Amino acid sequence: MTDQGKPSARGRPRDRDIDQAIVSATLELLGERGYADLTIGAVATRAGVGRPTVYVRFADKNALVVHALVQTVPPLRTPDTGNALHDLIELAVDFVARLANSPAGRTVLAVHAEAGRHPELEALLREHYLRPRERLVHDLIQQGQQRGQLREDLTPEDIQDLLCGPLIYHWLIHGDLADGQTRALLDAASRAITA
Amino acid sequence: MTDQGKPSARGRPRDRDIDQAIVSATLELLGERGYADLTIGAVATRAGVGRPTVYVRFADKNALVVHALVQTVPPLRTPDTGNALHDLIELAVDFVARLANSPAGRTVLAVHAEAGRHPELEALLREHYLRPRERLVHDLIQQGQQRGQLREDLTPEDIQDLLCGPLIYHWLIHGDLADGQTRALLDAASRAITA
Repeated sequence: MTDQGKPSARGRPRDRDIDQAIVSATLELLGERGYADLTIGAVATRAGVGRPTVYVRFADKNALVVHALVQTVPPLRTPDTGNALHDLIELAVDFVARLANSPAGRTVLAVHAEAGRHPELEALLREHYLRPRERLVHDLIQQGQQRGQLREDLTPEDIQDLLCGPLIYHWLIHGDLADGQTRALLDAASRAITA
Repeated sequence: MTDQGKPSARGRPRDRDIDQAIVSATLELLGERGYADLTIGAVATRAGVGRPTVYVRFADKNALVVHALVQTVPPLRTPDTGNALHDLIELAVDFVARLANSPAGRTVLAVHAEAGRHPELEALLREHYLRPRERLVHDLIQQGQQRGQLREDLTPEDIQDLLCGPLIYHWLIHGDLADGQTRALLDAASRAITA
């Protein structure tokens, strides 16, 4: 299970269609019922495939849920305009525009919240979803630190928290995030992280 | 249902004990099973009371859950040292120390995430939990703006997002928040909001 999906998902068109149907069914059911009530049987029914078709691809419900998230949250663009702050801001705007106001975003958030209660889900989420995305962002931040554009006395993790945190918190509390609001928060947060 | 609890909860000791048992049972079950699988029957059993005892106090599961959160998340202290930024930082440190590393904090977060799927839960949560706490924080921020300590070109909401967001985001992604990390993030975030 990687960002590119399991090998089977890159196989014949029929395999890709089945994978897509399973991913869509998983997201729909997560949105409607939540993680606790999700079953492989219900996913199979919604996707119009047999249960063995799901089980042959995914060891269990956690593997299925994390695969669905990995497939759904679009791979991050990695712009390089030479200005790391500018690149990070565009990355964040892009991410918010595609996720924060969609049902998928709410689902991703709910799965994160559930992970605190389910260590196996948390481990899979960290390995296959969080870490690959974090690595890209941290590379960009370190570039900015080397170029003297971002504060070197903060860790890349701190800088990510300071830039993305206000957006995610606003969205968590208020349930939406208009484009103007996103830019205003990023603009203000920039003061905290620039050298 | 207010910050002080329903009138019945302030009545005779026996009533307060029952209320406390119901709140504890609700939090435990929310932590173990999550919102989706919480039932009034299970809460009554865990609290050692009859179902009618719960129903006479709470119209439904949502009222029960929000009451449990209101009772559990400690009322915010409102220090006034004359320096609004200092007061806000102490408020945040205090809040994080008491909640972020406790199971209750994880439960509060999970209920917030569920609220996106349950409009009635969201409305109750907003009215009884979020708004009273937000009002206190916004009063403090407006004081700081009037005294020229905090930026006036940002809304109190923006300032709250910028100061609290990095902490909550860090906690959401990494699952913990050490005291030193809390202060480092607040210190950096201060740059974004001070006049």
